[in-house]
Amino acid sequence: MNKKNLELGKKPSAIRELFEFCNQKKKELGEGKVFDFSIGNPNIPTSKFVTDILTNLLINEDPVKLHGYTSAPGDMDVRNKVASYLNETYNAKLDGNLIFMTCGAAAGLAICFNALLEKDDEVIVYAPYFPEYKVFVEAAHGKLVALDSDNDLLPDLKLLEKSINEKTRLLIINSPNNPSGMFYDEKMIIALSNILKKKEIEYCHPIYLLSDEPYRELLYVNEKYPFVTNYYDDSLVCYSFSKSLSLPGERIGYIAINPQCDDAQDVFYSVAGAARSLGYISAPSLFQYMVKDVLDDKKELEKHYQFVREGYKTNRDLLYKSLTGIGYELIYPYGAFYIYMKALEKDEEHFSEIAKEYNLLIVPSTSFGSKGYVRLCYAVKKETILNSVEAFKKLYKRYQK
Amino acid sequence: MNKKNLELGKKPSAIRELFEFCNQKKKELGEGKVFDFSIGNPNIPTSKFVTDILTNLLINEDPVKLHGYTSAPGDMDVRNKVASYLNETYNAKLDGNLIFMTCGAAAGLAICFNALLEKDDEVIVYAPYFPEYKVFVEAAHGKLVALDSDNDLLPDLKLLEKSINEKTRLLIINSPNNPSGMFYDEKMIIALSNILKKKEIEYCHPIYLLSDEPYRELLYVNEKYPFVTNYYDDSLVCYSFSKSLSLPGERIGYIAINPQCDDAQDVFYSVAGAARSLGYISAPSLFQYMVKDVLDDKKELEKHYQFVREGYKTNRDLLYKSLTGIGYELIYPYGAFYIYMKALEKDEEHFSEIAKEYNLLIVPSTSFGSKGYVRLCYAVKKETILNSVEAFKKLYKRYQK
Repeated sequence: MNKKNLELGKKPSAIRELFEFCNQKKKELGEGKVFDFSIGNPNIPTSKFVTDILTNLLINEDPVKLHGYTSAPGDMDVRNKVASYLNETYNAKLDGNLIFMTCGAAAGLAICFNALLEKDDEVIVYAPYFPEYKVFVEAAHGKLVALDSDNDLLPDLKLLEKSINEKTRLLIINSPNNPSGMFYDEKMIIALSNILKKKEIEYCHPIYLLSDEPYRELLYVNEKYPFVTNYYDDSLVCYSFSKSLSLPGERIGYIAINPQCDDAQDVFYSVAGAARSLGYISAPSLFQYMVKDVLDDKKELEKHYQFVREGYKTNRDLLYKSLTGIGYELIYPYGAFYIYMKALEKDEEHFSEIAKEYNLLIVPSTSFGSKGYVRLCYAVKKETILNSVEAFKKLYKRYQK
Repeated sequence: MNKKNLELGKKPSAIRELFEFCNQKKKELGEGKVFDFSIGNPNIPTSKFVTDILTNLLINEDPVKLHGYTSAPGDMDVRNKVASYLNETYNAKLDGNLIFMTCGAAAGLAICFNALLEKDDEVIVYAPYFPEYKVFVEAAHGKLVALDSDNDLLPDLKLLEKSINEKTRLLIINSPNNPSGMFYDEKMIIALSNILKKKEIEYCHPIYLLSDEPYRELLYVNEKYPFVTNYYDDSLVCYSFSKSLSLPGERIGYIAINPQCDDAQDVFYSVAGAARSLGYISAPSLFQYMVKDVLDDKKELEKHYQFVREGYKTNRDLLYKSLTGIGYELIYPYGAFYIYMKALEKDEEHFSEIAKEYNLLIVPSTSFGSKGYVRLCYAVKKETILNSVEAFKKLYKRYQK
């Protein structure tokens, strides 16, 4: 047996473990008694707009085409639609030929690392970060180098400059951020790009900027989203419709390669080769065609995004107010659907274990490569937040003794 | 960039290349002028039974559950249903806890190789074989050892005995076979098992039997399908609903681990670890739930299988008769939807290039690790077969000069 994968399989991620624990607890105590802030499973249902598109496809499309193999990178019309949507929305200059449809962002990330990394190449990320980055990078035989963020959980730029070396192949960014809810504005993207450009010249090879943006539309400040391909040539975007359309189980997303990228066509080939070698034949076809129809109706889509944003923003405000009201210290989140909260003791894993006694399921920051925090996902029912306040109060009191 | 994946991406599989060439040709000449026997894309549409299940789920299920994350190995009810269906149908003794839902059989295979192989471990397969085996095994840092079949394209058992060594970790079988249409009956499964059992004792470690069976239901002889877990303890099954339900684009299948397997629980953990490291979060949820409902209605399902079998059998008989009538030499196929035909010259790649001049798209056997044949997929419209006869005649005549 493969020892590395056996070990990985024996120790599921802390988040997945909480997810399973939670399902068990809910069966024991009943749905309403467990306050599950663990996994990022969107609780706002996908809209009728999306369901109607899916049922229409099923009823009206030729099933041989609808459920048949597409080209490995995806149906060409779908890929062209993704490119033109992004070009219209972000004033980007993408090309359908360099869009690769994937089984969600996780697949996209795993594919990109396998496409771009040679053995022992380094990938830089700021902590806290999505834990699977490390799993995927290491499976691709690369090395994840985690840098500390500054006190506001934004990139420490000087540290980036110092940390890039001959082996650095990639910087991953994830804005709005899971787990912190942080957002990188245009100034930040420009600052990061400038450092990478300088270092590319210094080391005479491309250093890719990989933007993982499943939460792109879940932004609660009135700022435009700085689309990385507009600022930095050697850039790629991994996207998923999991969060924005509330379809996390369906596994649909894409990789967008910047046409300005050094050897863009080879990057695409390498992505295709990596996808093939990992067993990804193509992204699910019904959901590929859904993507085209969804992006075709920008008005309905924007209505859906607004509805979703309002819902999560209400939850964020409620949870933020409730917890700061009790006395907890939080990082103010600008997007995504997570709040990063200071643990009430040094050992955040122990803190999250104690929280379980109050049926509060929260993820310790160790999972995200940082210390002293817990992550709360607020993509939950409003009642979950309201009903959890007493439990959070009790947990707080326990630490005041 | 990763050199191996770049090379792999630059050279798409011959089948995929023909697929793209064909789409191009169809645009140029019109649908009816191209005789596409290349890719194994089922041409019989999925039945109303399946479409109704999908639309019902979309209309009646809670979308948060329907499209939400399932557990990584799949929804427990779905997994239990798969196990009980297989137990009832094949008198097997499977357990839902050892079923792992996957994004099709390709994902299942890639996951199994990554789960079971350490670097340089050997995987044995009989040629001709599905070309992606080699890609997946090598991506998992293993080595694919291809053995010649006997003249009937059935396993040469003596050769297997000689070829197993200390490094052998796995034997893959694929019955009914892509590309030959061969079927392994119960006697063959017992014979293979006996050799593996003997060798396990000799080498003191498990040698897994991995049965890749996407064509299980497409069998045109009146024999029962010998389900491997009934014959050999250290066995796993990779299955896909792509061919049996005509849903190849949707990527839904499973891995079934034999509970009698040595360290079955560890095999499962390793499968889970491999799936995670390759970026497979879970199989598409809508299609997982569809699987449950499909398997729940065995009567309708069997009706669908019968309909599909009759359709492909008619095509097989028509194509077989037409080609032998012209003078071609064929291997008689018992299942799947492929005919393996002797090329009319030594160089089967050149032969398939010449065939293109007659707008006949057929896959050279080099792709399947064997020499001197071409593969014809007969999952095509009846008219494609009828209209292609003239072209096959011309091709045949060309070689008689």
